[in-house]
Amino acid sequence: MEFTLEDISDAEVTRRRELYGPLTDSVRELIDAVIRTEVDEETVRDAHRVIAETVERLQANQLAGSFGVRHTADMKGMPWGNSVIGLRNAIAPPLTTVRRTDGTVSADFTLGAAYEGPPSCVHGGVAAMILDQVLGEAGSADDVPCYTGTISFRYLRPTPLGALHAEAVIVERDGRKKIVRGALSDGDGETVTAEGVFIVPKDWNGPIPRSIRSRPI
Amino acid sequence: MEFTLEDISDAEVTRRRELYGPLTDSVRELIDAVIRTEVDEETVRDAHRVIAETVERLQANQLAGSFGVRHTADMKGMPWGNSVIGLRNAIAPPLTTVRRTDGTVSADFTLGAAYEGPPSCVHGGVAAMILDQVLGEAGSADDVPCYTGTISFRYLRPTPLGALHAEAVIVERDGRKKIVRGALSDGDGETVTAEGVFIVPKDWNGPIPRSIRSRPI
Repeated sequence: MEFTLEDISDAEVTRRRELYGPLTDSVRELIDAVIRTEVDEETVRDAHRVIAETVERLQANQLAGSFGVRHTADMKGMPWGNSVIGLRNAIAPPLTTVRRTDGTVSADFTLGAAYEGPPSCVHGGVAAMILDQVLGEAGSADDVPCYTGTISFRYLRPTPLGALHAEAVIVERDGRKKIVRGALSDGDGETVTAEGVFIVPKDWNGPIPRSIRSRPI
Repeated sequence: MEFTLEDISDAEVTRRRELYGPLTDSVRELIDAVIRTEVDEETVRDAHRVIAETVERLQANQLAGSFGVRHTADMKGMPWGNSVIGLRNAIAPPLTTVRRTDGTVSADFTLGAAYEGPPSCVHGGVAAMILDQVLGEAGSADDVPCYTGTISFRYLRPTPLGALHAEAVIVERDGRKKIVRGALSDGDGETVTAEGVFIVPKDWNGPIPRSIRSRPI
């Protein structure tokens, strides 16, 4: 997998974060507003015209392809195009994941109208998308890279739109195979549980941590 | 599950479709442009200001909550807020699903920069999100409602961004349980396969079709 390296300072990363973060947040609000607006037809048509003009101005100079996964020269990640955690991707809620010292990865976030499937509930596929990201990050929280082999989700009950929590941790490790478990929860407990089998790439030449067996989550 | 009924004509549905469809498409282009733009800082700040103003105008009159799943009085569905197929949801690619007479549900669509996980590839969670929708629709293609119990994904190889195809069909049915299989494919074949167990709600009083056994997909 190719990564793009950019030899930029922390100050430059901060400058870009402060430039693109608020822009992307306003697009997130726009996505929500376009779903929920009930203003008159003329205002909707005006909004369309203004947005189309803005798109044209932003496209005047742009990357030939997708954003990719970029790192600064000292390997600070800038996964800003990522669909779940991307600073510059308005599809991403975005999730801000936190890694605890025991390897658990978690995130607190809020999902609004744009993430709806059944009425007032999170789309089952969105729940899967978010858990895939959190399990993936937990899977490499031991600093050994891995990719997703299989992942399964169990839907315990509908997940209401609103404030949610996701977390995951490696529960078993056997050679190049890691089993990661996680869950999505609302204030009343788990709504969706997930289990994934993650595989360390064959070309990984670093150390493989010792095997562990089923740790309760 | 509550649905919202609106007693509107086909002409009114068409009017709304033609009003909100192009607006939402322009927001999809905006999401992509915000990820990929390399214009100067002043143009980015201008874009932010213009979008924030547009959001304010659209929010002047809006639904109190999410869009919900609406139907016209003659039960034509308008799942326009849905994260995968929603006409008014810029997060949705959107998918346009087609149901064949044999019950297979399929969709052809293109995923760009906004759906990226690994460099130039579809986010594994996005693949899961889309397959969840397609399997769910295939699960109720026999006109017997059902909800997702469990769903599993097997990642065969990375899915490149670009033109893709998804399809799914019921392969087994045993009383209130249906097993649905599907896959995501690019031009070279399957990249992700999926299998889900879907359950007919206990309060379903309509007919339950006869049981069937493993039909090859």
